[in-house]
Amino acid sequence: MPKLIPRLPSTNSHLPFGDMQNSPFYGIDIITVKQFDREQLTYIFEVAHEMYEMVSRVGSFDLLKGKILANLFYQPSTRTSSSFTSAMERLGGSVIPINNVSYSSVTKGESLPDTIRTLEAFADVIVLRHPEVGSSALAAKYARKPIINAGDGVGEHPTQALLDLFTIHEELGRVDGITVTMMGDLKYGRTVHSLARLLSLYNVKLNYVAPENLCLPDEIKAEIGTKGIPQDCFADLTPVLPETDVLYVTRVQKEYFEDPAQHESLKGSYVITTETMRQAKSKMVLMHPFPRVWEIDMAVDADPRAAYFRQMEYGLYIRMALLAMVLGKA
Amino acid sequence: MPKLIPRLPSTNSHLPFGDMQNSPFYGIDIITVKQFDREQLTYIFEVAHEMYEMVSRVGSFDLLKGKILANLFYQPSTRTSSSFTSAMERLGGSVIPINNVSYSSVTKGESLPDTIRTLEAFADVIVLRHPEVGSSALAAKYARKPIINAGDGVGEHPTQALLDLFTIHEELGRVDGITVTMMGDLKYGRTVHSLARLLSLYNVKLNYVAPENLCLPDEIKAEIGTKGIPQDCFADLTPVLPETDVLYVTRVQKEYFEDPAQHESLKGSYVITTETMRQAKSKMVLMHPFPRVWEIDMAVDADPRAAYFRQMEYGLYIRMALLAMVLGKA
Amino acid sequence: MPKLIPRLPSTNSHLPFGDMQNSPFYGIDIITVKQFDREQLTYIFEVAHEMYEMVSRVGSFDLLKGKILANLFYQPSTRTSSSFTSAMERLGGSVIPINNVSYSSVTKGESLPDTIRTLEAFADVIVLRHPEVGSSALAAKYARKPIINAGDGVGEHPTQALLDLFTIHEELGRVDGITVTMMGDLKYGRTVHSLARLLSLYNVKLNYVAPENLCLPDEIKAEIGTKGIPQDCFADLTPVLPETDVLYVTRVQKEYFEDPAQHESLKGSYVITTETMRQAKSKMVLMHPFPRVWEIDMAVDADPRAAYFRQMEYGLYIRMALLAMVLGKA
Repeated sequence: MPKLIPRLPSTNSHLPFGDMQNSPFYGIDIITVKQFDREQLTYIFEVAHEMYEMVSRVGSFDLLKGKILANLFYQPSTRTSSSFTSAMERLGGSVIPINNVSYSSVTKGESLPDTIRTLEAFADVIVLRHPEVGSSALAAKYARKPIINAGDGVGEHPTQALLDLFTIHEELGRVDGITVTMMGDLKYGRTVHSLARLLSLYNVKLNYVAPENLCLPDEIKAEIGTKGIPQDCFADLTPVLPETDVLYVTRVQKEYFEDPAQHESLKGSYVITTETMRQAKSKMVLMHPFPRVWEIDMAVDADPRAAYFRQMEYGLYIRMALLAMVLGKA
Repeated sequence: MPKLIPRLPSTNSHLPFGDMQNSPFYGIDIITVKQFDREQLTYIFEVAHEMYEMVSRVGSFDLLKGKILANLFYQPSTRTSSSFTSAMERLGGSVIPINNVSYSSVTKGESLPDTIRTLEAFADVIVLRHPEVGSSALAAKYARKPIINAGDGVGEHPTQALLDLFTIHEELGRVDGITVTMMGDLKYGRTVHSLARLLSLYNVKLNYVAPENLCLPDEIKAEIGTKGIPQDCFADLTPVLPETDVLYVTRVQKEYFEDPAQHESLKGSYVITTETMRQAKSKMVLMHPFPRVWEIDMAVDADPRAAYFRQMEYGLYIRMALLAMVLGKA
Repeated sequence: MPKLIPRLPSTNSHLPFGDMQNSPFYGIDIITVKQFDREQLTYIFEVAHEMYEMVSRVGSFDLLKGKILANLFYQPSTRTSSSFTSAMERLGGSVIPINNVSYSSVTKGESLPDTIRTLEAFADVIVLRHPEVGSSALAAKYARKPIINAGDGVGEHPTQALLDLFTIHEELGRVDGITVTMMGDLKYGRTVHSLARLLSLYNVKLNYVAPENLCLPDEIKAEIGTKGIPQDCFADLTPVLPETDVLYVTRVQKEYFEDPAQHESLKGSYVITTETMRQAKSKMVLMHPFPRVWEIDMAVDADPRAAYFRQMEYGLYIRMALLAMVLGKA
């Protein structure tokens, strides 16, 4: 991302504090999955795997000691906010938590660029969750410090897509050659859109299982199609479950149905039970971006193929990797 | 507490990170005062006293460096939340603060077990304050990481009871052989119930001073009685004050009185003033779990027997001890 | 500030933990700009400049490792709260964030002195933002640990005034001999009152540019006048801009105008544009306490004389200096 505002000479000559400026991700913003190619993904996953190994061995370590993360959440998200906080703390860094819009100076009418440029006086990197599409790109345009998009409305949530792909990579040992079945709300869920885009960089087959009104949007299907990825749509999981290597389940929100009974009726075929799992491959991965409501029965949690809690932990390693990389330490 | 979910093999082999698994409290949950016997209390108090000595000498130290506490408060409590945060920070550890239910994913309908299993991907220990009785036991059932109950509705608040008993132990040098007078709302106050239970493990005499409608519940009195503890009820402090070694005062909340005048009338006899203190032993301890409203006059604060501010500091040492113990470091 | 409550012997003998008690600012409270003389300001600025140099060289360092700041905000202020958090973290210390009144025990009716005396059991220094004038002085009266006033309603915000003066000092290399023009709401803005008071310790000329209903209050003008400072009032910036070394712009809030059209009409003459800057000295400083609304056009941000983002960074160094000083480490 090109920066609109040049480095101010009088006070910013101190940046960066001895960082490795020749690190390939040094100083970049993480805004969209579209910014990554396969080579970069491979590198991120290597660093994330190293993070996993280091955490396994020593829990935490001081790679980012003295660095400060401004964790700026205009919308509530315990999961994502806690994950970034933990990632920074496990690397020995510190966090400025800004969790509650209602007390931000936004209520006094301040613009996002001003808030960002205020916080970069205090922090070395900024994680931003904001309800408006494009907010992270706007922030990155003004910021001299790296911005990491933690969700911009119905736009993108790139670290979620990266952790999803990393989960597949770690659990199955590969991404090429697999069949991924996405199920649930494929129309409004930004998670599946971003994951589908990343998967299209690999040699995969994609199945979509969704109610008629919640299918993958045509423009995304077309985008994926240009990469030569085989895609198929289904109303029911049954025919594709036996060939599925990754089953990615998402919530189907009540508000997208005019008739509540229509939503209720989905619970029959759109819920994963231990019975469902009996039809699945013995080696496969069941994922969910969480929170879940009724889509996966809690009895399934004990199944070793249920990867959704490990998925959170993989998210920690991905975020550790990204923080270390954009700060020039990996 | 038995764990419902086994340790997941693929990602959790890294736990624990070189901790002393043979430490007697390693990995346990702190859910209820009923889980402790005298020997364990003695051990906790020894560790807490060591924490006091270390803080006296060096302020903070790196016993839990690299460890992360998820401080999960579904209900506001500045005092308890700050105390645990300080305890973790004085031990060199880090905190993920989750203070505000309104922004937690709970509002999206997530279950407590799912929230707990999410947070344990990011943290090494979870402190939980929740409005529902039994919530901490439920959390502990699902969690692989230790849970510390920081109050579950009208249920228990075990670390408060432990700090109360530790205050007595440190201020008087002993617990056996003393007379403890509890005064105020003895019916709804979980604090006095838990403290009475802990005291019943010692050789003490208990006096209860309460308005008729706010006496200690019969079942708790019966439970204490089975331990052979002498107990007596009084409507007024006067007869028992001269023999009292520990006077434990609690708030009497207006909402428990149909007639506001009835509540108002209590202020005559249920308030501690410098005059009251003149009738008390020269060596005794005045305690209050705080916040206070009118029960103890601020003029009493300068009295060396007024231990309620020191009580907060003892709470810090108890929480430091528990965190270190359940993480296998003490 | 004299302390009302003596150090309690039994638990507080450990304070201070090996600090340099002969440091001139050790243990003092920062309550009002009136407490500082020129010599003290010079000393604070020397320490703040050292902080700037250290941050330039190493980012963060462990001067306050093991120390804990309770950041107690009864009112929202992302900017000030984040600045103090960053200051403490860059010095290697930890923070207890208490950002949201609604969940503080204040809602249970606790008094400010009780809250302060609770928090000082957990923290080494307390930063307080509170809506009532005099609240920090009250807190300091009861606290054994140092209190730093981060804004007490329409009262004072001394660290803002210190950072404003430090900005002038660093940007121009001197304070004596300069002309400072303050513009906007000079009646209700505590920022300009405090800065004017500090400037009156130096040999400066002050210009006030304000709508008739928002002029500097007479009592403050009189106070400044007793120091022999030349002061002049203007309705428009034009005549004084060419001689101005520091232009300090503040928001003019709509709520102070009965007629919205009156407020709207100000935007013509009370907004700084690139055109305005063409009339200004080539070496001068444009400042704003932020947040801004429309008073300074974003096109001005790229002008090297626009110092308002650097002002935030100077604030970081001032707060680092004050924290280190009151904790006996500078």
